[in-house]
Amino acid sequence: MSHNDCIFCKIIAGDIPCFKVYETDNILCFLDIGPVNKGHALVIPKEHHENLWALPTELGKDILEACQKAGKAIVEATGADGLNVGMNNHEAAGQLVFHAHYHLIPRFKDDGHDHWQQQEYENMDEAAQLADKIKGLID
Amino acid sequence: MSHNDCIFCKIIAGDIPCFKVYETDNILCFLDIGPVNKGHALVIPKEHHENLWALPTELGKDILEACQKAGKAIVEATGADGLNVGMNNHEAAGQLVFHAHYHLIPRFKDDGHDHWQQQEYENMDEAAQLADKIKGLID
Repeated sequence: MSHNDCIFCKIIAGDIPCFKVYETDNILCFLDIGPVNKGHALVIPKEHHENLWALPTELGKDILEACQKAGKAIVEATGADGLNVGMNNHEAAGQLVFHAHYHLIPRFKDDGHDHWQQQEYENMDEAAQLADKIKGLID
Repeated sequence: MSHNDCIFCKIIAGDIPCFKVYETDNILCFLDIGPVNKGHALVIPKEHHENLWALPTELGKDILEACQKAGKAIVEATGADGLNVGMNNHEAAGQLVFHAHYHLIPRFKDDGHDHWQQQEYENMDEAAQLADKIKGLID
């Protein structure tokens, strides 16, 4: 399954070059060329799936293993103090390429990338009701 | 495997309450009480594993399925436009509880949570050399 207009499918096909760091039968990992910190890489399934919800759950093990192996090597190679794994789904969440991908971002103490501000629930009832609503929507 | 001093292990044991949204034999998902946006939840393995690298790869499928199911319900319940999945490993990456967890964050157009600024490699050689260094560190 490959999409003609997908830049990641073109990278997988070898039609667009990339800085590859890891590859298996199902997974490719390569550097993001606009890194949040240098060494920032993307883990993608070779099959075209649009986002989180389109991924076959059977890929979960391959994805986790790729994040572990490439993530460990990225931390070692860059001397990082930590690693963020991130996946953006839909444009409002920052997804720019609609081929599911996981960001691996090496992090350094005081690198200036601040985490998003947290909010508070009005009260415990509000949280309990929202949890029930979410729970009720799961098959 | 449970750690006496781990707040998530206490939640799993039922010793600390939580707003549960999803549960299987291996996975628990509950609301983050300091949400980036309301509906923000955490997916955790019931077994205590410190971070990404400590997770058995066999949990990959369960984790992916939990992120899909709970993530979909969170988006529906909150009317969100997108969803971020995020995992912080080590303190420098924002990890506060040392029991591996995936954040599910519903996102809304113009919700003000800006993504981190991107950098540039000096030149393609710098990126190629870093990719080779990372690749060389993977077993």
